[in-house]
Amino acid sequence: MDQTALFTMSYGVYVLGTKLENKLNACIINTGMQVTSIPEQISITVAKTNLTHDMVKASGQFSLTTLSEVSALENVKRFGMQSGRDVNKFEGIDYKVDVLGNPYIEDGAVAVLTGKVTQTVDVGTHTIFIASVIDAKDFKENKPMTYAAYRELKAQSMPPTTKNEKIYECTVCHYEYNGEIPFEELPDDYVCPICKQPKSVFKLK
Amino acid sequence: MDQTALFTMSYGVYVLGTKLENKLNACIINTGMQVTSIPEQISITVAKTNLTHDMVKASGQFSLTTLSEVSALENVKRFGMQSGRDVNKFEGIDYKVDVLGNPYIEDGAVAVLTGKVTQTVDVGTHTIFIASVIDAKDFKENKPMTYAAYRELKAQSMPPTTKNEKIYECTVCHYEYNGEIPFEELPDDYVCPICKQPKSVFKLK
Repeated sequence: MDQTALFTMSYGVYVLGTKLENKLNACIINTGMQVTSIPEQISITVAKTNLTHDMVKASGQFSLTTLSEVSALENVKRFGMQSGRDVNKFEGIDYKVDVLGNPYIEDGAVAVLTGKVTQTVDVGTHTIFIASVIDAKDFKENKPMTYAAYRELKAQSMPPTTKNEKIYECTVCHYEYNGEIPFEELPDDYVCPICKQPKSVFKLK
Repeated sequence: MDQTALFTMSYGVYVLGTKLENKLNACIINTGMQVTSIPEQISITVAKTNLTHDMVKASGQFSLTTLSEVSALENVKRFGMQSGRDVNKFEGIDYKVDVLGNPYIEDGAVAVLTGKVTQTVDVGTHTIFIASVIDAKDFKENKPMTYAAYRELKAQSMPPTTKNEKIYECTVCHYEYNGEIPFEELPDDYVCPICKQPKSVFKLK
């Protein structure tokens, strides 16, 4: 089985925002899609290890913001490469809230949807949330960022490693594990925080 | 609610192939994605009106071929714009079969996956099939066709209408309804056979 065949599937890049009680949080996903048009329903697939997963499961609602092709990598870093358990990802930036109070950003975004969860499907490491779209805003600016374009952008933006650094790079999305987590070797069950691929796709730079 | 916000979501373009007893069939979908990597699982979302839907539901298996950016529109026409109830879509073309006997094409394709259904989720007009990936081939040629690129290609390829023609055009994917179905006006529950959008997105050319 040639795993690279799976990397030929196309995706967008989205900020999944949520609110539970007074806490705001968000993460990056590539797995948003429309599943029906009558009525409008979307699905999102979220890793169970994400705090956002637990918050969406508990609140039953979310915002889904489509990032634009000119969106800064900082948006992906802010929402995708740190945990809401450690930081408030919305601190110090301009954000708005949708009709249900879920946070979203307009800067670097092309549209935002508000979803109300109607079904959850357990698929193992991830949960698929099916949701009714109860509001939608199109900012009518720029084109959406594709996941393929994000991967290229990320590859170009990375500085060469310096000696003595031990950096594991995800060969799929170019995420770099460089020691934020307290272990030197990647554990066997490690998955890329961005694209959710397993340890086997990581190479030492 | 601004429905156009839903059109900012990114997709690929896939041929979903299936075999039930001795019958081969396939349709076009844009809703394929990987949902987990440990183990490899994918999901496909298929309209219940498609014969391929019923065949996948009964057989519990399918091939999913990612079309390439240089794939001919003929592939979309062959598999997406006619029904397996009327024609054998694989007649007269070169095709192969995967490890489970599902048909797929290599011409105009970048990769093919074989899925074995593990869960089905009813979402109304469509069914989401979750499947284990049991085989995968990457042809290592060209890039995948995105749904956005397909829409542009389709828009460019269309000849202007001649007078006396009554053509309804899907403003989302540029599919043209021009009378194959025996009614002059689109019925209220009409959905685009390609992108599954409702009657409201169709405009008279």
